[in-house]
Amino acid sequence: MTSADRFVDAGLRTWRLYMDRAGKFFGSLSPPDLQLEVAPSRNRLIYIWGHLTAVNDAIFPLFAFGPKRFPELEKIFIAQPDRSSAQIPDAAELQKMWTEVDAALCQEFQKLSPSDWLQRHQSVSEEEFVREPHRNRYASLLGRGAHVAYHLGQAMLAKQK
Amino acid sequence: MTSADRFVDAGLRTWRLYMDRAGKFFGSLSPPDLQLEVAPSRNRLIYIWGHLTAVNDAIFPLFAFGPKRFPELEKIFIAQPDRSSAQIPDAAELQKMWTEVDAALCQEFQKLSPSDWLQRHQSVSEEEFVREPHRNRYASLLGRGAHVAYHLGQAMLAKQK
Repeated sequence: MTSADRFVDAGLRTWRLYMDRAGKFFGSLSPPDLQLEVAPSRNRLIYIWGHLTAVNDAIFPLFAFGPKRFPELEKIFIAQPDRSSAQIPDAAELQKMWTEVDAALCQEFQKLSPSDWLQRHQSVSEEEFVREPHRNRYASLLGRGAHVAYHLGQAMLAKQK
Repeated sequence: MTSADRFVDAGLRTWRLYMDRAGKFFGSLSPPDLQLEVAPSRNRLIYIWGHLTAVNDAIFPLFAFGPKRFPELEKIFIAQPDRSSAQIPDAAELQKMWTEVDAALCQEFQKLSPSDWLQRHQSVSEEEFVREPHRNRYASLLGRGAHVAYHLGQAMLAKQK
């Protein structure tokens, strides 16, 4: 492994660690568990699970991997707060989507060279990227991993009583 | 900037982002605010602030930067759960410790070359590191940053009502 490979490896391991923890946590919850709120009148666990799935799904276009797998999630779990949509996916559907997004992202991540990781993501134009080269795929991976950790911390409050 | 510099920059930016968010959040709380719990019967905000300060302070010996600045924090905020210690630092003391640890860590981080970042941290022996080169300073930085994000997510629940 080169030094650059080591840095990529560290980013992917941190991502994997929190994705595994989140996947195990949400995947073990019963449908009634998923209705629990992380704190009084705050998000339900099912909403946080859907939110993380939707935000991770958006990595496909952001990293130029292709379209989102489940574009319908954005409206329910990103654009709107919890309890806004009359119909949201149930536990079995979310489990399937979570697993599919996670597996497909991992597959794409493995194809990237260290230099690919340092290329711009699609929310920044080529011109902007010349001035702001820190807006690269790798930086987004770290940001998205921290986003999983942020919400996992909240989710753990609902169940560990 | 070389590629290696870019990876280090991404790790430090993610660290900085969550440290700034946490510093701003906790630093704006009044003493009564700091007594709020993140969820019923769970950690108080002052405990989470102290916990993050203590865990960050432990980066000094972990990264071979020198001794902890405030070794007394470990017993109160890591070894014991909230409400175990009769006496804990107050808001003004924690603010001072948080700022000092943050500033001194940043100063040390700036001195490291990309190759220094990929050296082992002090919880792994030289022999283990040969087999497990992923246990380096950089990977720990990412892990500690995610740890800040994890608890910040919880802390935000107490105040944003």
